[in-house]
Amino acid sequence: MDGIHLLGEWYGCPAHTPEFTRAEALREVCLKAVEASGLTIVGEKFYQFEPHGVTGAVILAESHMAIHTWPESGFVTVDVYVCNYTTDNTAKAQKLYDLLETALKPARAHSQKIVRGGLNEQPKVA
Amino acid sequence: MDGIHLLGEWYGCPAHTPEFTRAEALREVCLKAVEASGLTIVGEKFYQFEPHGVTGAVILAESHMAIHTWPESGFVTVDVYVCNYTTDNTAKAQKLYDLLETALKPARAHSQKIVRGGLNEQPKVA
Repeated sequence: MDGIHLLGEWYGCPAHTPEFTRAEALREVCLKAVEASGLTIVGEKFYQFEPHGVTGAVILAESHMAIHTWPESGFVTVDVYVCNYTTDNTAKAQKLYDLLETALKPARAHSQKIVRGGLNEQPKVA
Repeated sequence: MDGIHLLGEWYGCPAHTPEFTRAEALREVCLKAVEASGLTIVGEKFYQFEPHGVTGAVILAESHMAIHTWPESGFVTVDVYVCNYTTDNTAKAQKLYDLLETALKPARAHSQKIVRGGLNEQPKVA
């Protein structure tokens, strides 16, 4: 059973918004997006940089998501990684990634999809 | 300024050990490895699956690490991602990855190194 890891570097985001600059606002965006995607939250931690900027992670029953913002540059990096242990969670991972992109509104996105090895398999090419 | 993301799927680990099965023990291994690598912890969260298995993340000033264990299969996945914002953290990221591999003792490792885009740059080929 494989895992799917979506990696994004997003540029030109409207970086003056609370969800870009403040930990509590970005945390809310992330938790709502995870819930809407159908993935299962088992923990989370977000940290506020001063004067602005956030780093955070949500750990999932299916693996994790992580996010880091640089408001001074309108730049954010995003990870969504799911293991397909008992079911194929690829569509849920893509939904979460897309919801975060919709929320943070990058002008330009660089995205990668990495197929990771699973319990008994070598990874295949994406 | 780029970022470096190390992704590992490790197989054949001695999975009966506390650091593989119990959240508190794996948390200690991870926090010590991060500190030994010279990276900066700003938060962490680990979750205990029952009867065993752990998922966790350490958020860093430099970005994050995440780890997920499947004791029933001796399988673990690891992420170490650092942004090279004010300095090149690549060597610290590799040290952290290597320390975790030494601690969890996989018989076989599948590792990938992904170069991620930075604040003002498109990613280059690794």
